[in-house]
Amino acid sequence: MSDLVTYDVVIIGAGPGGYVAGIRAAQLGLKVCIIEKDKPGGVCLNWGCIPSKSLIHQACLYGNRHELEQMGVEIDTRNFDYGRVQRKSREATQRLNTGVGYLLKKNKVDLIQGTARIVSRNKVVIQGSDKTIEGRNIIIATGSRPAEIPGFEFDEEQVLSSTGILSMTKLPQSLIILGAGAIGCEFAYIMNSFGVKVTLVEMADHVLPFEDAEVAGVLENSFKLSGIQVLTATRAVSLEKTNAGVVVSLVGGDGKQQKLEAEKALCVFGRRPNTDNIGLRSIGLKPEKGYIPVGDFYETTVKGVYAIGDVVATPLLAHVASKEGEIAVEHIAGRKTKTRIDIHAIPSAIYCEPQVASFGLREGEAKEKNIPYKKVLFPYKGVGKAVAIDHAEGMVKLLCDPETQEILGCHIIGHDATELIHEVLLAKSSELLPEDIAHMVHAHPTISEALMEVAKAVNGEAIHY
Amino acid sequence: MSDLVTYDVVIIGAGPGGYVAGIRAAQLGLKVCIIEKDKPGGVCLNWGCIPSKSLIHQACLYGNRHELEQMGVEIDTRNFDYGRVQRKSREATQRLNTGVGYLLKKNKVDLIQGTARIVSRNKVVIQGSDKTIEGRNIIIATGSRPAEIPGFEFDEEQVLSSTGILSMTKLPQSLIILGAGAIGCEFAYIMNSFGVKVTLVEMADHVLPFEDAEVAGVLENSFKLSGIQVLTATRAVSLEKTNAGVVVSLVGGDGKQQKLEAEKALCVFGRRPNTDNIGLRSIGLKPEKGYIPVGDFYETTVKGVYAIGDVVATPLLAHVASKEGEIAVEHIAGRKTKTRIDIHAIPSAIYCEPQVASFGLREGEAKEKNIPYKKVLFPYKGVGKAVAIDHAEGMVKLLCDPETQEILGCHIIGHDATELIHEVLLAKSSELLPEDIAHMVHAHPTISEALMEVAKAVNGEAIHY
Repeated sequence: MSDLVTYDVVIIGAGPGGYVAGIRAAQLGLKVCIIEKDKPGGVCLNWGCIPSKSLIHQACLYGNRHELEQMGVEIDTRNFDYGRVQRKSREATQRLNTGVGYLLKKNKVDLIQGTARIVSRNKVVIQGSDKTIEGRNIIIATGSRPAEIPGFEFDEEQVLSSTGILSMTKLPQSLIILGAGAIGCEFAYIMNSFGVKVTLVEMADHVLPFEDAEVAGVLENSFKLSGIQVLTATRAVSLEKTNAGVVVSLVGGDGKQQKLEAEKALCVFGRRPNTDNIGLRSIGLKPEKGYIPVGDFYETTVKGVYAIGDVVATPLLAHVASKEGEIAVEHIAGRKTKTRIDIHAIPSAIYCEPQVASFGLREGEAKEKNIPYKKVLFPYKGVGKAVAIDHAEGMVKLLCDPETQEILGCHIIGHDATELIHEVLLAKSSELLPEDIAHMVHAHPTISEALMEVAKAVNGEAIHY
Repeated sequence: MSDLVTYDVVIIGAGPGGYVAGIRAAQLGLKVCIIEKDKPGGVCLNWGCIPSKSLIHQACLYGNRHELEQMGVEIDTRNFDYGRVQRKSREATQRLNTGVGYLLKKNKVDLIQGTARIVSRNKVVIQGSDKTIEGRNIIIATGSRPAEIPGFEFDEEQVLSSTGILSMTKLPQSLIILGAGAIGCEFAYIMNSFGVKVTLVEMADHVLPFEDAEVAGVLENSFKLSGIQVLTATRAVSLEKTNAGVVVSLVGGDGKQQKLEAEKALCVFGRRPNTDNIGLRSIGLKPEKGYIPVGDFYETTVKGVYAIGDVVATPLLAHVASKEGEIAVEHIAGRKTKTRIDIHAIPSAIYCEPQVASFGLREGEAKEKNIPYKKVLFPYKGVGKAVAIDHAEGMVKLLCDPETQEILGCHIIGHDATELIHEVLLAKSSELLPEDIAHMVHAHPTISEALMEVAKAVNGEAIHY
């Protein structure tokens, strides 16, 4: 039997979980192939993180054009063409997926085009062909797709998914965004910056329901100030398509109903794991609420079959997928590795302006679970650099153990938050204390000084506040 | 005698050394005053780091206006008014020095306006008044001024110092910058972005002579591509003022002479400590090459008299001054503190675009001193975020011990380098290893991923290169 096996690892899906696992596996001397039905890079690179970052960057430039006007520069936006903005985002994506293809080739990872179906714990077939791929191990990294809710089906014309809005080449006059998670907030920022009338609707009582409520409140304020209508604690009950666009019926927390009209709606209710039609049953795997149960090293109940990324019930984040892929293949290669990612040290990042980034304990969660904590804040307006570059909106919030000062969570809102979070995260993941950050000399003037200040604030020793 | 003493600490100078020392001293329960002849915040806040960061931010927007044009936006710069740019930088400065004044008041630090002169180890007089201030300890934090070289005297009209160029409200047609250190490079970037024809002249064989040569080479290339004329290994021998501006005579490394004309010259040959006329002799202190010799805790040879910041022969950086101030007053307050800043963990930051940031060992220095090292690089073009936002120029360079992997130095050139450096610096200052950064999950897509990759590269395990 064993001499029939060609690959050490067969990976299904070339997203940030699969392709990183593939490269890492090859580094470790494993013979590996990846089966991908679309382009390498997955949703993240092709229809998610990467193109949206290009849009955000351009939205930021366009939205801040008054800074140029303040210098006396005259700006005429009559010929502004969103199609060009969109095209530029596609170019970035194209450059990067070519790059991933190159990396796979360079690392001698075989990339097989097609839709895979598992037929046994060692065998995968390519659908619509007679090709069979055999491997000692299989990694399922098929990712996820936008969740579709009855009554809010995507037509990608009037009712858009996150994928649909990334293909859009013409701006609507108005947009209702249902769901104020990371994607909803990023598109609220992008579209509003480009002059679209945006209404952002969220069922939970604050935007970014998975982030710290106080930080989310700062974002909500900022959004409102920039002209976005934000409706929290509000549920969309139905959507009707009209000639002019869409009409969405909403019910507020107080039970009050209202109807909202807009040219288009973007529905971002979360994502669903791609675990159907990939042959899980043939090897006795049963998803739970769509997710594949895994144990240590992301191995499923079937020995040699692993599942990583969005098909597993861990945070649906590209960097989580990549790390899970690394852990799985390191385990396969017999390397000493972590059994799992430490859930308290996973960074979350939202890239609108102001940016939001965090890890670990949220204040609401601490209260709910009765976890004792000490909370310190440091505002961006106490940071010289932030004031100098007109980005004084924001703050760093640190939660730590009141006895030991162990870092329990950190929440940053403000310019560059998504980069800044890593210094504090390194402290957390390496079991350092706030004082290690507080005592370190930080370059002046940088926004990172806010981290030093918040760490000093743990002992009441912040200088600039 | 002792009941005559009013203050625990008398600080001379309210720059980033003095005012931070003052606040920290007050936190520690000391009675403290600061004597300042100008505005609180010192050169850094008023005529250095802060206003220049505002100019850089605006230069970056103006210089990148083609990104708006690529979207179809039409831009007319005929009424561009540099005066407004400059005014905005002054406003940031004003907001911040008001802030420092407020912080001093809040912390009950007495701010005394005037020029101080030390008359004994416990006594300072305010020149031109009959006021005498007494203190158990004195901290000299009088900072530095632009170095003036015979033949290149500042008139702040045609021949500018760094202070003069920050007051300038009208752009020259052309500018010769003599000295390509941090200030020279930042102004080369600013002025070039605003359309001034810039020539940057440096005696050493690369720009940023105190930075890693390879990194400096990347900046030099970037400068040349953006239209700046860069002349390294070139010495300015004389400067002549004409009706049209200035003529500078230069001698290249090959001995070849040339004359360059421009409307103005900016001379940034370094800085000189302000140690004259402050009464050092009255207490028996003799500066060496202008700098005040200090021992542990930045105490001079006179007990109870300390010197911090630019008057001490440590790197002339605001954040070094602040830290030295903190150490001095912590020592005065009897707190356990470091004896000195670890020279290998001082970050350096240059804020032009691409930014440069570093700490510790440079490769040239390692070769010179025969220090064994392992060198790894990771290019920004391997970072999805950098590509997505069109900032793929740059790299991270890590030098570590070939045996133990101890981090010896890190050099970053590229977008956000001045913030990114802190994650690696925290690893260094807390004695972590590259693997601690390599194993940490970094948010995707961020530029910080370059740090994870370069750390992985130490063991040949980078994914995206």
